[in-house]
Amino acid sequence: MIVMLKPAYDPNQLEVLRLWLEEQNVHIQMNQGIQSTVLGLIGDTSAIDQDLVEQLEIVEKVTRVQEPYKKANRKFHPQDTVVDISGVKVGAGHFAVMAGPCSVESHDQLMIVAKAVKDAGASILRGGAYKPRTSPYAFQGMRELGIPLLLEARKETGLPIVTELMDVSQLDAFADVDCIQIGARNMQNFELLKEIGHSKKPILLKRGMSSTIQEWLMSAEYIMAGGNENVILCERGIRTFETATRNICDISAVPVLHELSHLPVIVDPSHSTGFSRYVTPMALAATAAGANGLMIEVHNDPPRALCDGPQSLTLEQFANAMGLVNNILAVR
Amino acid sequence: MIVMLKPAYDPNQLEVLRLWLEEQNVHIQMNQGIQSTVLGLIGDTSAIDQDLVEQLEIVEKVTRVQEPYKKANRKFHPQDTVVDISGVKVGAGHFAVMAGPCSVESHDQLMIVAKAVKDAGASILRGGAYKPRTSPYAFQGMRELGIPLLLEARKETGLPIVTELMDVSQLDAFADVDCIQIGARNMQNFELLKEIGHSKKPILLKRGMSSTIQEWLMSAEYIMAGGNENVILCERGIRTFETATRNICDISAVPVLHELSHLPVIVDPSHSTGFSRYVTPMALAATAAGANGLMIEVHNDPPRALCDGPQSLTLEQFANAMGLVNNILAVR
Amino acid sequence: MIVMLKPAYDPNQLEVLRLWLEEQNVHIQMNQGIQSTVLGLIGDTSAIDQDLVEQLEIVEKVTRVQEPYKKANRKFHPQDTVVDISGVKVGAGHFAVMAGPCSVESHDQLMIVAKAVKDAGASILRGGAYKPRTSPYAFQGMRELGIPLLLEARKETGLPIVTELMDVSQLDAFADVDCIQIGARNMQNFELLKEIGHSKKPILLKRGMSSTIQEWLMSAEYIMAGGNENVILCERGIRTFETATRNICDISAVPVLHELSHLPVIVDPSHSTGFSRYVTPMALAATAAGANGLMIEVHNDPPRALCDGPQSLTLEQFANAMGLVNNILAVR
Amino acid sequence: MIVMLKPAYDPNQLEVLRLWLEEQNVHIQMNQGIQSTVLGLIGDTSAIDQDLVEQLEIVEKVTRVQEPYKKANRKFHPQDTVVDISGVKVGAGHFAVMAGPCSVESHDQLMIVAKAVKDAGASILRGGAYKPRTSPYAFQGMRELGIPLLLEARKETGLPIVTELMDVSQLDAFADVDCIQIGARNMQNFELLKEIGHSKKPILLKRGMSSTIQEWLMSAEYIMAGGNENVILCERGIRTFETATRNICDISAVPVLHELSHLPVIVDPSHSTGFSRYVTPMALAATAAGANGLMIEVHNDPPRALCDGPQSLTLEQFANAMGLVNNILAVR
Repeated sequence: MIVMLKPAYDPNQLEVLRLWLEEQNVHIQMNQGIQSTVLGLIGDTSAIDQDLVEQLEIVEKVTRVQEPYKKANRKFHPQDTVVDISGVKVGAGHFAVMAGPCSVESHDQLMIVAKAVKDAGASILRGGAYKPRTSPYAFQGMRELGIPLLLEARKETGLPIVTELMDVSQLDAFADVDCIQIGARNMQNFELLKEIGHSKKPILLKRGMSSTIQEWLMSAEYIMAGGNENVILCERGIRTFETATRNICDISAVPVLHELSHLPVIVDPSHSTGFSRYVTPMALAATAAGANGLMIEVHNDPPRALCDGPQSLTLEQFANAMGLVNNILAVR
Repeated sequence: MIVMLKPAYDPNQLEVLRLWLEEQNVHIQMNQGIQSTVLGLIGDTSAIDQDLVEQLEIVEKVTRVQEPYKKANRKFHPQDTVVDISGVKVGAGHFAVMAGPCSVESHDQLMIVAKAVKDAGASILRGGAYKPRTSPYAFQGMRELGIPLLLEARKETGLPIVTELMDVSQLDAFADVDCIQIGARNMQNFELLKEIGHSKKPILLKRGMSSTIQEWLMSAEYIMAGGNENVILCERGIRTFETATRNICDISAVPVLHELSHLPVIVDPSHSTGFSRYVTPMALAATAAGANGLMIEVHNDPPRALCDGPQSLTLEQFANAMGLVNNILAVR
Repeated sequence: MIVMLKPAYDPNQLEVLRLWLEEQNVHIQMNQGIQSTVLGLIGDTSAIDQDLVEQLEIVEKVTRVQEPYKKANRKFHPQDTVVDISGVKVGAGHFAVMAGPCSVESHDQLMIVAKAVKDAGASILRGGAYKPRTSPYAFQGMRELGIPLLLEARKETGLPIVTELMDVSQLDAFADVDCIQIGARNMQNFELLKEIGHSKKPILLKRGMSSTIQEWLMSAEYIMAGGNENVILCERGIRTFETATRNICDISAVPVLHELSHLPVIVDPSHSTGFSRYVTPMALAATAAGANGLMIEVHNDPPRALCDGPQSLTLEQFANAMGLVNNILAVR
Repeated sequence: MIVMLKPAYDPNQLEVLRLWLEEQNVHIQMNQGIQSTVLGLIGDTSAIDQDLVEQLEIVEKVTRVQEPYKKANRKFHPQDTVVDISGVKVGAGHFAVMAGPCSVESHDQLMIVAKAVKDAGASILRGGAYKPRTSPYAFQGMRELGIPLLLEARKETGLPIVTELMDVSQLDAFADVDCIQIGARNMQNFELLKEIGHSKKPILLKRGMSSTIQEWLMSAEYIMAGGNENVILCERGIRTFETATRNICDISAVPVLHELSHLPVIVDPSHSTGFSRYVTPMALAATAAGANGLMIEVHNDPPRALCDGPQSLTLEQFANAMGLVNNILAVR
């Protein structure tokens, strides 16, 4: 951290700052210049609150040099992390497609979709039991009744399952789930992040809809700080002024994250566009940009889906998309 | 809801739609035109998923007429709601200032600030025990130890207290709290919203940092649908591209909310700007625009505050701001 | 400018940087630390491209200390600038209201509105002759025919006029105009800015709809660098994800600009909200926040206005708003 | 256009609306329902201002059915447009890469880059003579001296050239240029758009940094309405809250535009990311998503580039990127 002092600073206040920093095990290296005095903070500054320092009367400006995340940081962990979801690897050379319905709706629906996505080449089954819905009057998912159906579909198809956890109180129901998804709206539900940090299960952490990449990595850091390093990052679109698509899929997050972090990065073209007709082009774009996998919503009868039908691919569309994705994978 | 069909639609598909809508107690009024066929959906459409209808093959476009919220809607509740926080009224003609430190840090700090804000004219004491922090390494608040200090400060000053709840599991500790705050990051933590909907305590619901006003009212609706109609809305700034302030305070949300809803609306100029020097002008702006109250961070020693120091007013600055706010109140 | 080098930098490359900087009359003050080497650039760095330096192989990070604008910067011009528009002062203690129709539509319309806004207390008449419209098929303004009508209205009422210039080629027609408005879409039309920098006429510079405050001040700098220091800044709302209002009025821009610059700042609550029913509350908010004036659209028959009718106040609404604004002014 | 009336509307006001619409050659089809009355407007509504109608006292809500653009609309022009730039085709099956330096800096620099990009497979040479710069103190391009260098490079390499026009007054200097670029900041410089609408030269229209896709198509419509249908759309990133990249490249604009319009769509991964290390992945993503071409900045010595060095590829990096792009093209 680089701290620039105001031209005429009070040396007593500097002394107060120095003492406070030393309590945090950070040392000051002073650089007295003609125009300005610059302090270099040496040591582990990840716990130093930049805003706090910036507020001091003697301080003009603060620049963070060291990223505030450590465990998620590629600098301290140069090799790509490979997360193992009950035998299916994600990360480095391992590309994984997670597919399935937005919501688990019934035994039959889930089995039809699960078998179809497996046949088309998906390696993990997704499906929501607990559903975050904007309206209290909308279908809230099958909730605790949905998990056993997912487990049954896993038994039937051999595909590990990933499903969304919305609250700490639901954790018991997730005991047999292979990978826990944390949705966009919970990316900064810090109590939840701390709790799953004590688990060993792989975590799929979706980006908050207006979260910066740094905030997203800080949320991964919350999980990892608790001891769980099996984190997969999932870009699902960010909120902007544009209304032609539900969100804007930030494809550049893929190379940015590969640079900043060692964690696997996948892309969800379904939620990020909101319309099935844009899902395949965006799946191809994400693959070409270097994503480690995709999460795609697939439904046997999208117009009748109880949730997010407009963005679900049909079984045929998904099979077709997989073919095109594999073509890109072959040359990337 | 107005549904426009595609020029050449399949009458069988229309029949399927009609049957499905009738299952939801919604009737279709058909308007066959020369260029297009328009359906008016009659009945309570708040539970009809607009996206779902839009996805149907025969549908060109859907427009919602009725807002998807009912209990929060001024149309069905024309009078302003007045929320009573242990004797302090908020809403309609009742203007309330909630002030206090960002975080409860110690008994002494809290008492000093509490007495000072009371003397300056605040009517409710704010203070965070549980703190949502972007970094797992930052101060997380005094947590369960902070609540008793707040209760003590209430006893000492007579000011009711408002403090943030971050997880359902903390609810027991909040039994004696006067008003529960739901922070921006939890505005769409639907499980939490459902839970506090079963409480009777006043709820201060902050706007999510990239939530639309409609989404915000839908979150109020979640609480109200559970039976708790004591909801106060708090604008705290939205996220944009601008970096000169931490967020952009959407002052126009005040008149927009007064039009759409009967719930009281207050503004937090501290979080919405992020810098103490902008807090007073924005407090005055919010007051002039018709807010029902303010939430302001005050600290006896901002540069040493453990959290959000840069945006806290000193005791003197707060007293000065209150004088100016009262001037505006006198003429608005 | 503070330049932090990468841990292992090539001293030859540093030498190249030093020579290049010296060509720009900037000197390097080196601060060799244990962890990192930090360069302080001394001299006038406003012409140094931060991105360019950041790109150098040896550079880790660059922080700008000095703002890249000089003439618009309060640091070098501590007193508030007062702009004189044909006798009407704007800035410091001088509050000015510019009001009138969005578009000049006819002689009669303009006279009716001009007299009414004068009677209600406006001191400058606004009205668009050349109109930037999103659609080529929409009314484009009376163009060169509109200016004489504005001049006539000035003669009749004594109010100086402000009207929008869209292209350098229109400058001749503006010879007798009192104040030239540069619209949001032209805030970064740098050729136009350079041209009006050679004029001596007061310029009303609207903020671009997604421009940062710094970019806005850089555009003011373009005009001032040409020799024209009569610049008034006008906040007119920024683009965000929210759709309840046309734009979000960034009221906090008022105190931020007062801190960074000496130029007068006014607010346009009409364009920033897009709906007449929100104009008065936002006018009051802007006044309370310390704006030096307002720009408000007023029409004698808003539903029949050829442009932006939805956001225009009627004559009565405007008179009422002026009364309320004056109440705030009296106590602020 | 579908107009919903308020429940209790004044029939006289409806009569006024009907007369006004008939003056615009639009007819009303009335649909009287139990709950509401809905008007269908029949005829060419592209010139009807939606805001204007929405503002009427009797109107509850207006929905546009027909897009407000016609010439750019795929509905009225189902086949893909192919734009011919002096023999190089762009659109439909024709993929074109435009590459070259951000700014023309000297004869030697331009020749070196031009030959290298040609050898690597680019088919059009880009290079800025007039440069829009945020700061008046930054290098503004070689301006009129740059164009002859571009023409010379064309002669030498046979590559047609594309370069940015910033003002109508520069048009004469562009007489021999093959394709005129309109930059993001001028996307809504309507006077400029009208002027180039009278030209027959191919136009490369970049998206404004906070323009919706519909506004962008309306700007294309301005050019086409003047008679020039040779418009190529270029996505160059939109402004959001994220700071890890200069802008966010909206890759989904590619499939959205292919659906809404027949015009060719290319992507500029250089400006949209702002960092050379992200350019290649984004070029691949754009190609995979179906873009009709790319615009890429290439420099022989990026760290010494006078403009936008950080985002320029070296000659080697560009050759490498072209190889990868061709791999994607071969399988898409």
